Amino acid sequence: MTLPAKSAELIERRSRFLGPNVSTFYDEPVHFVKGEDVWLWDADGRKYLDCYNNVPHVGHCNPRVVEAICRQASTLNTHTRYLHDGILDYVEKLTATMDASLDTAILTCTGSEANDIALRMAEGMTGKRGIIATDATYHGNTALVSQLSQSNVPTVGFGLDHYFRFVKAPDSYRNPDPDGTRFAEAVAEQIAEHEKAGTGFAALIVCPYFLNEGFPDHPDGWLKPVAEVVRKAGGLLICDEVQSGFGRTGTHMWAHQKMGVVPDIMTMGKPMANGHPVGGVATRSEILATFRKGYRYFNTFGGNPVSCAAAMAVLQEIEDRDLVTNARTVGTHARTRLNKLQQKYDFIGDVRGSGLIFGAEMVLDRTSKEPASEFTDRVINAMRHRGIIHSKLGRHKNTLKIRPPMPFSVENADLLFDTLDGVLAETPLIS
Amino acid sequence: MTLPAKSAELIERRSRFLGPNVSTFYDEPVHFVKGEDVWLWDADGRKYLDCYNNVPHVGHCNPRVVEAICRQASTLNTHTRYLHDGILDYVEKLTATMDASLDTAILTCTGSEANDIALRMAEGMTGKRGIIATDATYHGNTALVSQLSQSNVPTVGFGLDHYFRFVKAPDSYRNPDPDGTRFAEAVAEQIAEHEKAGTGFAALIVCPYFLNEGFPDHPDGWLKPVAEVVRKAGGLLICDEVQSGFGRTGTHMWAHQKMGVVPDIMTMGKPMANGHPVGGVATRSEILATFRKGYRYFNTFGGNPVSCAAAMAVLQEIEDRDLVTNARTVGTHARTRLNKLQQKYDFIGDVRGSGLIFGAEMVLDRTSKEPASEFTDRVINAMRHRGIIHSKLGRHKNTLKIRPPMPFSVENADLLFDTLDGVLAETPLIS
Repeated sequence: MTLPAKSAELIERRSRFLGPNVSTFYDEPVHFVKGEDVWLWDADGRKYLDCYNNVPHVGHCNPRVVEAICRQASTLNTHTRYLHDGILDYVEKLTATMDASLDTAILTCTGSEANDIALRMAEGMTGKRGIIATDATYHGNTALVSQLSQSNVPTVGFGLDHYFRFVKAPDSYRNPDPDGTRFAEAVAEQIAEHEKAGTGFAALIVCPYFLNEGFPDHPDGWLKPVAEVVRKAGGLLICDEVQSGFGRTGTHMWAHQKMGVVPDIMTMGKPMANGHPVGGVATRSEILATFRKGYRYFNTFGGNPVSCAAAMAVLQEIEDRDLVTNARTVGTHARTRLNKLQQKYDFIGDVRGSGLIFGAEMVLDRTSKEPASEFTDRVINAMRHRGIIHSKLGRHKNTLKIRPPMPFSVENADLLFDTLDGVLAETPLIS
Repeated sequence: MTLPAKSAELIERRSRFLGPNVSTFYDEPVHFVKGEDVWLWDADGRKYLDCYNNVPHVGHCNPRVVEAICRQASTLNTHTRYLHDGILDYVEKLTATMDASLDTAILTCTGSEANDIALRMAEGMTGKRGIIATDATYHGNTALVSQLSQSNVPTVGFGLDHYFRFVKAPDSYRNPDPDGTRFAEAVAEQIAEHEKAGTGFAALIVCPYFLNEGFPDHPDGWLKPVAEVVRKAGGLLICDEVQSGFGRTGTHMWAHQKMGVVPDIMTMGKPMANGHPVGGVATRSEILATFRKGYRYFNTFGGNPVSCAAAMAVLQEIEDRDLVTNARTVGTHARTRLNKLQQKYDFIGDVRGSGLIFGAEMVLDRTSKEPASEFTDRVINAMRHRGIIHSKLGRHKNTLKIRPPMPFSVENADLLFDTLDGVLAETPLIS
């Protein structure tokens, strides 16, 4: 592999200034210099179709978001200890998309900060500290919430690990649980373990569409049984919508709505302001009041006028361009194309997704379902060299992760799948 | 007190959408709609001199920063898993302002995230968890670092409090410690307590200019004795330069340089990108390597091209306009004017500050030094009504906190002190 001289220089400087083990994507990392809508360009002027990045939710460099940022940044940027319309107009519009019970919010700068607050809200409301999550997820990078990520192996974390217990991540392909009752039972078992240990049970935190776990194929309403178990035990349900929210799944604004539950606390992040650092927590007013009573939370940058202008422009774009419907239409088309590829290629074991999160699980053998992880990696790298950006995920890293900006079109999807067809035909299953 | 109708409406909407206890400044909160350089305008078109806000470090809506944000936001905004010059150019320029040992950095979105990392770095390097801070400080809002803030009374926090021990905040006015040896002894005592408790000692975290504690008047080099105690015990020195950094004290780029020490870890935040959400941790490469080895830290928004463009523009403005020298010049003038006011008013017990952080401590009696906290509050509210924005701080909330944007001029200072003179003359010491 010979890297362009400029890329080699950047990689050397990364390890010098940012330290070792700073992850990059691809065998040959890409050096992007420009973005527009669903497109990215590298330093050599090569154009790529972005089928991966969910942060630029309404498209790279969306003109309405850029204009909102520029306008507000040149007018006023300050903190929330002064009065300003921006945060109020935004929270009003945001909470109007949710169940009436979720009527208040805190704005932060990252999804990590949002989840860090959510866990403390659960502690404050229940007086307990036992948290349950799946064993193949990610909920952020603070000392507290990094404990939720088994895949991150945090060896430093101030001994917080004993407050966390894990259930096996749902897996509709290898271990089906069509009505969610087995997942609910697994959570009930861990609640009992928390209680036995004296920790007590505070909350279950899940991405309602289980994106990091490989977005298992679940019918609508699948979370109902587990929500019932959580409530019966006096705990709270936290839905982390950092990835699944803002219409991503194409059927609802929030994935928990699709999954048939109303969370006690909902957290948001990545796509919220199209890349401007904004996160948030929406919850019932009584939960927010309890949190604020015990804790004078203030976030210098959280909810500042520029962040709120950017976030508001994202909501307006979703609404005005009906991007949730677009996600549904294009997602349905994508599933059809993936199903056709599955008929052609034996190594496509499973096809999953809803709206603009979709993908396929690669296996060495459809009967044994042995994961074709190394093959998947080669496919992704080959796609990158053909100008298509996407990734892989799931416990075995053998599921194609396709999660493009929301303006992604049927034509974009056709380019993606035509290219994928070519790569799959040429890539040997065993190298 | 009759609020403008618009302000009353905003206050009502704040409690509805943001929950109770969201703090505002002043008896009559201000509704700012526009900012420029050191000036702010409210919704009624009234102009205020900003003597408080350090976040707009190079001036409200600084044109160079706004231009950098607009240019990069309309070109590309993405994460650090792709290669980009922006973060590397910035970290190179940033670390060049520090001791050669501080040669690597992690960029985050907030100072809280930076301190949350710093404490885990200390845990990772020492294998211990005992942290020491002063009893009148603030280092952020995550579950971990909120434990450092005695003033914040976090009643929720997953039982982390037993890792934290506190020493009395230095106070040059009421309890002088001219060479820092008593502070060093107090820290040594708490190190012994951590060791006795089996927690061990990981780090001392301080703002090197003790801004939240009321910026006591210490000679240069004052932190040397405590740094020696910390190192002898095998712990790390963390300097939180979120408030004191980027030339604020007028003599050095970083307050720890003034205080004669090189920290093992230094954290940054608020002024770093003039209000764009950026924070950071600078440290030795071995510390960063140990952290990264134990922990796959990734921050979606941290170090993104727009954030780095904004932060770079701030460094360039500081350099090109020689704002550190300006802080020194104007700060010296401010001290002179404060000293004159002290000769005139008996209730000014002490005058302190360096560069563009300065203020005066208000007392009922110069002999007893009884804090005039309530008087200070009335002064600040009266100043707000005369178009001057500043605040109060310290253990007794009786110290004027004056911490303006760095382009603050001698003329601005004269307007501030002329107005203050008038307010002090008219405000009764006892209401």
